[in-house]
Amino acid sequence: MAFSERVARLKSSLIREILAAAQRPGVMSFAGGLPAESMLPAVDWSALPAGFGQYGMSEGEPELRQRIAAEARALGIECSAEQVLVTAGSQQALDLVAKLFIDPGTPVLVESPTYLAALQSFQLFGARCVTVSLNDDGPDLEQLAARLEQERPAFAYLIPTFQNPSAVRYSAEVRTRVAELLDRHNVVLVEDEPYRELVYDDQLAQPLVAQLRSADWVYTGTLSKTLLPGLRIGYLIASPKLFPYLLRLKQAADLHTNRIGQWQALQWLGTPALAAHIAELQVFYRDRRDAMDAALRRHFGDLAEWQTPAGGLFFWLRLRQPVDTRTLLPQALAQDVAFMPGEAFFVDPDAHPGYVRLNFSHVPPELMEEGVARLAGVFRAAAEGGKSDRSTDTAAGASARLPAV
Amino acid sequence: MAFSERVARLKSSLIREILAAAQRPGVMSFAGGLPAESMLPAVDWSALPAGFGQYGMSEGEPELRQRIAAEARALGIECSAEQVLVTAGSQQALDLVAKLFIDPGTPVLVESPTYLAALQSFQLFGARCVTVSLNDDGPDLEQLAARLEQERPAFAYLIPTFQNPSAVRYSAEVRTRVAELLDRHNVVLVEDEPYRELVYDDQLAQPLVAQLRSADWVYTGTLSKTLLPGLRIGYLIASPKLFPYLLRLKQAADLHTNRIGQWQALQWLGTPALAAHIAELQVFYRDRRDAMDAALRRHFGDLAEWQTPAGGLFFWLRLRQPVDTRTLLPQALAQDVAFMPGEAFFVDPDAHPGYVRLNFSHVPPELMEEGVARLAGVFRAAAEGGKSDRSTDTAAGASARLPAV
Repeated sequence: MAFSERVARLKSSLIREILAAAQRPGVMSFAGGLPAESMLPAVDWSALPAGFGQYGMSEGEPELRQRIAAEARALGIECSAEQVLVTAGSQQALDLVAKLFIDPGTPVLVESPTYLAALQSFQLFGARCVTVSLNDDGPDLEQLAARLEQERPAFAYLIPTFQNPSAVRYSAEVRTRVAELLDRHNVVLVEDEPYRELVYDDQLAQPLVAQLRSADWVYTGTLSKTLLPGLRIGYLIASPKLFPYLLRLKQAADLHTNRIGQWQALQWLGTPALAAHIAELQVFYRDRRDAMDAALRRHFGDLAEWQTPAGGLFFWLRLRQPVDTRTLLPQALAQDVAFMPGEAFFVDPDAHPGYVRLNFSHVPPELMEEGVARLAGVFRAAAEGGKSDRSTDTAAGASARLPAV
Repeated sequence: MAFSERVARLKSSLIREILAAAQRPGVMSFAGGLPAESMLPAVDWSALPAGFGQYGMSEGEPELRQRIAAEARALGIECSAEQVLVTAGSQQALDLVAKLFIDPGTPVLVESPTYLAALQSFQLFGARCVTVSLNDDGPDLEQLAARLEQERPAFAYLIPTFQNPSAVRYSAEVRTRVAELLDRHNVVLVEDEPYRELVYDDQLAQPLVAQLRSADWVYTGTLSKTLLPGLRIGYLIASPKLFPYLLRLKQAADLHTNRIGQWQALQWLGTPALAAHIAELQVFYRDRRDAMDAALRRHFGDLAEWQTPAGGLFFWLRLRQPVDTRTLLPQALAQDVAFMPGEAFFVDPDAHPGYVRLNFSHVPPELMEEGVARLAGVFRAAAEGGKSDRSTDTAAGASARLPAV
C-alpha cells in the first residue's frame, strides 16, 4: 500500500496527544484554546425553517454572506457579498488556501512563531515556510522586506491582531508599512483574524487587507470565538481574482458548509445581541487574563518573561533558562496540569526552545493559582536541573480528583 | 501570482452552472440529486444541550461513532467505533481519501461511468483515473482483473449499490468476485454507499468491504439522503491501518465536524423513527420513479434505452443516436428544463457521448410529464439533426412561469 508523499509530512500527533491528555478528568488545561463553557450563549433553534435541511449553495447562505460583507466593510475592507465564502471554521479556509497556492517546495511566508495548525496545513501540502521574526509591535520590517524580495513567497500568512501564540498586535504604523511592502512586492496576503473581538483595551486595529492597494488577499474570520465553536462556522473573504478558485475548491472539499449553523450565525451576526455578548466576553476574559497575570507574577516572575496580552486567549512565556519544553509535558501531566510547548509554533522547533503558550480562558480563576503554581514547580525543577521535587508531587497526589475544567 | 499546479486541474464550472441555472424560478430540474423538499423530516432542536456549542473531537461525537459502527456491523462490516470518522458529508471523505493516496500521476481505479464529484476530487489531486466498464450487474470482471494487475491502482473507488449515475447494483456473485480480486491484488477499496437505504425492491446487498479478507478499505456513508443534507453529516469507516492518517487529515481540514448536526443525527440514527422515515421515503420515491418511468416510456421510447432503477435517485439514459448532450443544455434550459449531461461522469467525456442522467426525486409527478416531454423534444430535434421545433418553443413560452420545483 502506497500513501501519497504528503502523508510523510503529516505532523506527529503530539498536539492531539496533549489535547487528549488535557481532557482527562482532573487535568487543569492551559493547553487548548477553548472558550469558557459558562460563556457559551444560550441559542434558540425554535424558528429554524425546515428548508434549511436541504442542500445549500457552496458559497454559503446569501443573507449570511451579505451580513459578513457588511461587517467587513465596517472595518474598512472594501468588499461585496460575492467575495464571501462561508467555511467549516476558519481552519477550512487555510486548507483551501493551501490547495490554491501550495505545491511541494512552494515558499510561503509566516510569522515566527505562528499558528501551529496553519503551519501543519501548509506543510502538509509541501510548503517551504520562510519566516519573519515578530517584535512586540509586529514583524521585523527589514527582515520582511528581504524575505519578500528574495523568497518571492506565494503568499504571506499573517495574524496581525492578537496573534496565536504570541498575542502580538501589530501597531498602526507597522500595519501601514507591511501593507506597503506586500503591495510593492505584489505578494498575496492571507490575513487570519479570529481574535479581533476579544480585545481588552480600547485600541482598535484596522485589518491589514483594508490597507492594500494592489496585492491580492484572503481575509479569514470565524464565529467560533464569539458565538459557538461547535457550529463550525467561519468564513473567508477574497479579492475577486482569487474567489472563484476558492469556491471551486470548497465545492470539491465538502459541497457546502452546514446550513443549520449558518442559520444560527445569521440570528446573531451584526445584531445588538451579539454585540452585548461580546462585551460580556471581554469583561469576563479580561478578568481571567488578570487572574493569570497575577498568578504568573507570583510563580513565574523569576522563571520567565511575558507581555500582558491586550486581547486573544493566550499568554506567551519566554523562559529565562531555555529548555525544550516538550520534554516537560510528562511531568506537568503527571501533576494534572497541561500546557502547550512553544516549540510547536516554530518552523524549526529545535532552534526555539524555551517558549510556553498558556491559555487563560478555560480554567476558572479559583483553580488558576493552583495550576500555575504546579506548572512553575515543573519549570523550576527543570531550570535547577533537577527533577520535580517532593512537595509538588504531594500536591499533585492530593488534588488528582479535581473536576475537569 | 502563481497558483499551485493542481489549480490547472480544477474542472470547469459546467456542473455548477447547470445546477445554478436549474435553480432559476420556473425551471424543472432533473439535474441535481436533491431530496424532495416535502420529505424533509421535521426535526426537534429543543433538547440540544448547550455543551454541544463547544469545540468537539476530530473523530466525531463518541456516541454517534458507536451508533454508526453498530449499524455497519449489522450490515456485516466488522468494525468498532474507533474506526469511525464523522465527516462533513461523504464528499469530505473523498477529499480525505484523495489526500491520503493521490500524488500527481497516481493511478486510481474508478467505474466508467462514475460519480462526477469523486472524479473531480481525485483529478484535482492529480490522479490518473483508470476505468473499468460497468455491466448491469457490476463491473466487467475480466477488465477489472487486468486493470488491477497492470495498473496497480492506489485504490479502487466503487459504488456498488445504486451507483451514481448508472443506478447499477452489483449482483451478489459479482460482489464476491470483486472482493476476491481486490484481496488477491491487495488493492485498497474505497466503497461509497450513499443510496443503500433508498431501495425500491426487496433485494438486499451486502457491502463489499464486508467480504474483504485482507485488503484495506474505507467505507463511506451519509445522512444526507435519509435525514437532512443541510446538516452535512457523513462518515467514513476505515480499516485500522488507514484510520489514523484519515483522522489527522480531517483535523488539518476543519478540526472537526459541526456538533449541532451530529447531535441531531444522534437523535435519529438507529431509531425506529428513522426506520419509519426511510420506509416512507421508499414508498414516496418508488412512486416518483414509476411516474418518471412511465413518462420516459411515453416520450423517450424511441430515443433512448434505460434500466428501471431499483434504488437511488436517478435514471441513466443511453441515447439511440449518440450526441454530445452537453451541447443540448442551452436548448433545454431555454425551455425551463434541466438535465445532467452524461459525459461529465466519464474520465474521457468526449469518448462517451449520448448519456443523460435524470433525477426523479425532486420534480413533483404532476410536472414530471411536462418536463420529460420538453426534454424529449430537445433530444428528438437533435436526433433529427434539426433545431428545436416551433411547437416546443411555444410550450416553453406558455409555462415559463411555473414555480420552482
